[in-house]
Amino acid sequence: MFERYEQLARQLGVEHPVLLAPMDLVAGGRLAAAVTRAGGFGMIGGGYGNEAWLREQFAAAQGARVGVGFITWSLSRQPHLIDVCLEHEPAAIMFSFGDASEHIAKTKKAGILTICQVQTAAMAREAVDYGADIIVAQGAEAGGHGIACGTISLVPATVDAVGDKVPVVAAGGIADGRGFAAALALGAAGIAMGTRFYASEEALGDDDAKRRIVACRGGEETLRGILFDMARNNVWPSPYSGRVLRNAFSDKWYGRERELLQQLHVEQPRYQEARANHRYDTAAVIAGESAGLIHEVLPAKTIVMNVVEEMRDILGYSSSKVSKPSTQRHEA
Amino acid sequence: MFERYEQLARQLGVEHPVLLAPMDLVAGGRLAAAVTRAGGFGMIGGGYGNEAWLREQFAAAQGARVGVGFITWSLSRQPHLIDVCLEHEPAAIMFSFGDASEHIAKTKKAGILTICQVQTAAMAREAVDYGADIIVAQGAEAGGHGIACGTISLVPATVDAVGDKVPVVAAGGIADGRGFAAALALGAAGIAMGTRFYASEEALGDDDAKRRIVACRGGEETLRGILFDMARNNVWPSPYSGRVLRNAFSDKWYGRERELLQQLHVEQPRYQEARANHRYDTAAVIAGESAGLIHEVLPAKTIVMNVVEEMRDILGYSSSKVSKPSTQRHEA
Repeated sequence: MFERYEQLARQLGVEHPVLLAPMDLVAGGRLAAAVTRAGGFGMIGGGYGNEAWLREQFAAAQGARVGVGFITWSLSRQPHLIDVCLEHEPAAIMFSFGDASEHIAKTKKAGILTICQVQTAAMAREAVDYGADIIVAQGAEAGGHGIACGTISLVPATVDAVGDKVPVVAAGGIADGRGFAAALALGAAGIAMGTRFYASEEALGDDDAKRRIVACRGGEETLRGILFDMARNNVWPSPYSGRVLRNAFSDKWYGRERELLQQLHVEQPRYQEARANHRYDTAAVIAGESAGLIHEVLPAKTIVMNVVEEMRDILGYSSSKVSKPSTQRHEA
Repeated sequence: MFERYEQLARQLGVEHPVLLAPMDLVAGGRLAAAVTRAGGFGMIGGGYGNEAWLREQFAAAQGARVGVGFITWSLSRQPHLIDVCLEHEPAAIMFSFGDASEHIAKTKKAGILTICQVQTAAMAREAVDYGADIIVAQGAEAGGHGIACGTISLVPATVDAVGDKVPVVAAGGIADGRGFAAALALGAAGIAMGTRFYASEEALGDDDAKRRIVACRGGEETLRGILFDMARNNVWPSPYSGRVLRNAFSDKWYGRERELLQQLHVEQPRYQEARANHRYDTAAVIAGESAGLIHEVLPAKTIVMNVVEEMRDILGYSSSKVSKPSTQRHEA
């Protein structure tokens, strides 16, 4: 179990294969750098793709060895953003949602570690065929967009499909060392966490959004749907939907999407206004089921240390054989 | 981790805390007895409640030490079935879905081990307040009825809520030793498996249904919905829905439930006819996401042995400190 773990750590050039999920607008350069400095692997949330924001976040990372992740289908509208990233020598580029083959050809040519996030074992096979170096298997518990398979079955199914070729990282529903240990038991080589790092001091998210993650009592206070995408005029094609914390807006409209469609001329401007003003009774906090396991906003470093220590306690893993790698890419 | 495991094994009077989920019409007495004889804990699927069927299945268990499980709200329509069970001295009674307080009062009075299956941590607290001795935390990956929280977050959240009072058993998405090891890492004391035991030689399910479980390639070939409940005129109240293998019927109607409602006068008789004739292109095979991890119909004994051995390999658990308990309740 720990051979896979240590191989992935070496491949990422980090001590702990604990990845920061590249959350759009939340995983900025400061958070990514903090995760990397704590021994994990920070990734900037490239999201839909915004060149100015990307440049700002690479600057905020202050030379720390970080990766960057994109929503693939959106990146495909402005593929030059890959070149913008390459200028900043990222440690890895991650692609989620959609056919990444054209982008992978580019990252492979540039010799950049290529991570693909998938939601089914079949998608993992396809991504590995296109050249993915690392697969993130994202379960339905995850915050934000995804599909429908739960982490506990998806991870071993993905390991069975591609685990002999590339390491598999588990994502979705993991916020502590118990989830980390479970992921390793399922055959994963590491974990990616989004929601847990959203509730970190360094995350760009609003304080009230972080407070709502801390207040969430369990997966039943989240939901997977398309309401918030409808309200922000950004509906993804099926089978994608997105998980968010329930709030007054979703309690009003969930299951009444057709009615909402008829009211969009009223509800969209309201939603946009709420989003602009960080009013989370209406605007969605994009977070996953692991919110129920999160009771405190913490520094990213503490989060990484806690999950690693708790995992080691559970699995009786004491000695790391990997040498401490550099956390500054310009040191070498 | 193994203290909890061994405590639960002692409490159930078995060697391995591997529970047969009491699947309605599938987990008959023969399967329950086979699971118990293999060192696990077999439970007859009392389901909605049918006295004649129950008596048959207790007879088929041939005196093996087995439990029995019910759909609570349906049992409440014919509470005397508890007395029918008590006649057969079950090793435990399990309640799923709905308020079990009146039944728990009865099982506790009779000194019968009382297991409650829940889908949120809040439900677990309530069940423990009513007297549950063991909690099964059932994730959304599970086949059949359930709610929406994934196993990997639900189990630790439930352990945090009630784990200091009672053991928590993980259910949903588990079909092999990796899932078993993950469940223990999450804080569970044992596991319950349905789908894996459905694809056993001893299960009452139809051979073609078992073949479809074996053929299922992953969670994406299952779905959670109410279609099959609509078609058999048995819709459960929200938030319950049911997971089944996708088939031609669900591919036709999923997402078009309102249209189906208008066609029920045609579709319900068709569905009933398909169900009666075991035609699973229309009738649902009630199975969970772990179907993607199941590649063979096996004897129940092999299933129990395999998950235990694989779990032990993963976690490095070698010596069981529990003495081998009796598998015959009449031996003592």
